[in-house]
Amino acid sequence: MARAWHLKSRPTGMPTSDNFELKETALPELGEGQVRVRNRWLSVDPYMRGRMNDVKSYVPAFQVGEPLEGGAIGEIVESRAEGLAPGDLVLHMAGWRDEAVVAARGVNKLPNLGAEPQKFLGVLGVTGATAYFGLLDVASAKPGDIVFVSAAAGAVGSVVVQLAKAKGMTAIGSAGGEQKCGFVRSLGADQVVDYRAGPILKNLAAAAPDGVDVYFDNVGGDHLDAAFALARNNARFAICGMIAGYNDPNPASFRFIMRIIAARIRLKGFIVFDFQSRMDEFYREMGQLVASGAVKAQETVTDGLENTPDAFLGLFRGENTGKMLVRL
Amino acid sequence: MARAWHLKSRPTGMPTSDNFELKETALPELGEGQVRVRNRWLSVDPYMRGRMNDVKSYVPAFQVGEPLEGGAIGEIVESRAEGLAPGDLVLHMAGWRDEAVVAARGVNKLPNLGAEPQKFLGVLGVTGATAYFGLLDVASAKPGDIVFVSAAAGAVGSVVVQLAKAKGMTAIGSAGGEQKCGFVRSLGADQVVDYRAGPILKNLAAAAPDGVDVYFDNVGGDHLDAAFALARNNARFAICGMIAGYNDPNPASFRFIMRIIAARIRLKGFIVFDFQSRMDEFYREMGQLVASGAVKAQETVTDGLENTPDAFLGLFRGENTGKMLVRL
Repeated sequence: MARAWHLKSRPTGMPTSDNFELKETALPELGEGQVRVRNRWLSVDPYMRGRMNDVKSYVPAFQVGEPLEGGAIGEIVESRAEGLAPGDLVLHMAGWRDEAVVAARGVNKLPNLGAEPQKFLGVLGVTGATAYFGLLDVASAKPGDIVFVSAAAGAVGSVVVQLAKAKGMTAIGSAGGEQKCGFVRSLGADQVVDYRAGPILKNLAAAAPDGVDVYFDNVGGDHLDAAFALARNNARFAICGMIAGYNDPNPASFRFIMRIIAARIRLKGFIVFDFQSRMDEFYREMGQLVASGAVKAQETVTDGLENTPDAFLGLFRGENTGKMLVRL
Repeated sequence: MARAWHLKSRPTGMPTSDNFELKETALPELGEGQVRVRNRWLSVDPYMRGRMNDVKSYVPAFQVGEPLEGGAIGEIVESRAEGLAPGDLVLHMAGWRDEAVVAARGVNKLPNLGAEPQKFLGVLGVTGATAYFGLLDVASAKPGDIVFVSAAAGAVGSVVVQLAKAKGMTAIGSAGGEQKCGFVRSLGADQVVDYRAGPILKNLAAAAPDGVDVYFDNVGGDHLDAAFALARNNARFAICGMIAGYNDPNPASFRFIMRIIAARIRLKGFIVFDFQSRMDEFYREMGQLVASGAVKAQETVTDGLENTPDAFLGLFRGENTGKMLVRL
């Protein structure tokens, strides 16, 4: 019997462990073109919170009573699909469970970049690609730019800081608490702002006296407002996430949004999946940066399938530095 | 003696007539390279409100006790500048007064497009150029797009509606009250939303059941939030003005800003002066559209220099359809 986390009820505001239920499920017989995968690593990500609401979005909502999904790295243990054999390590979306039967078109063998498998859930996976395309494409960040990134100790933010430095930019990161700020500093950030130590606007103004050219937004709310206030002319904002609002039913309010006009700010929201066709470029470039040590992969690892909801909830309590992973 | 409106005190919130003072001023002797201009038409524009605050922006703040400025069309009555002769009609920035001495480099002879002079303060001037570059360049609007424009009965908005129709787009405009909505309909808008008749979100959703590809924002606030809510994938917002916030000290709040991400919305603020180098293109294209009747110039005219502040304040009371002008 496989075990899989199901959505027991839809969270209102901040999710709790009561919203999740671990259930045993019999796996079906393997059909033609299918493989059975035993998961080794599971990804938990802030965007999954959005899928727990009953709203139309870019990925379908999770259904109450149904298993949750998410990125996972597993080992094929049985195959009825050409080109996939037992022992192959694959990336797929049947996470939040220990074993799954999936169609061959839903799995991808890990690229041969000499990296540990779980890296393909983090710096060499969706989170790394989010940082890469968000910074360099969506925000058009260029050498010499002053880049501000929020949640800079997080999975995406920690890669943004390192990428910015590797590409000759000034990197300013925000994080909550002295420990995380120290971590962001260790990544090479030029300035670090502790958003728990006072108003983000005041502290960012001190850290970025010349303003910011690029804002990589993972947070929204006060961080985004501070970036409006301090944007230089023709600043570009890549809007990747707004975690401050995911569990907050109140509308976000902005004192400085009007600066969009005077400073000619460009904001653009993006979804990493839109860059699917450029993943070869990403693997090549990021593979080199990781191999050379220019970009390091920080991970926070939780052990055991039974702790998956805790790991997920920890994202909103700010418990991770770098990529949050569950190891089975 | 010339007469010029001066900023008597800085407005807090909505300006009142007490913030303005009409004073007589002796004009200086004409220096080399200067002209004396007698104004015929004055422009009053919402952006002037921003210059009444003591903040750094893309144009310098007005100073208390000093004369106000703004676009104006005048006739040269005396010249010590080559190429400029008495009788020439010129566009310049020494508005809010009846006569002024200005440097030759600060005046532009009206292009010979066979149009009435005041058109160069409106549809063939800064407001027309704002509509043209905002819609076609900043928002990258294309034939087939569903375009929503707020303040569609205003100087800029009324040109946006007509341009959108001339270029094969669907045009949805918002305006306040039945009379203005009728005017917007007469411009060719496919749908008109009366923002005084109920929540803008609900009414826009009914007018744009398929959502919007382009939002041309003159208003900010609830209009912008409704556009966030109803944006189609890859929607583009040109942020031209946020008149809802100009006199409001409270921060603007948004329930739907998070849709920037899922719908991959691009917002871009802009200032028409950044397109100065493309004014020849504008005069050529817009000159044709005006000459052919595809774009009509609607004007609200106030007579007399002494009524200039009233005309300006009327912008915030929604008293104008099309371009608000003062005729001397």
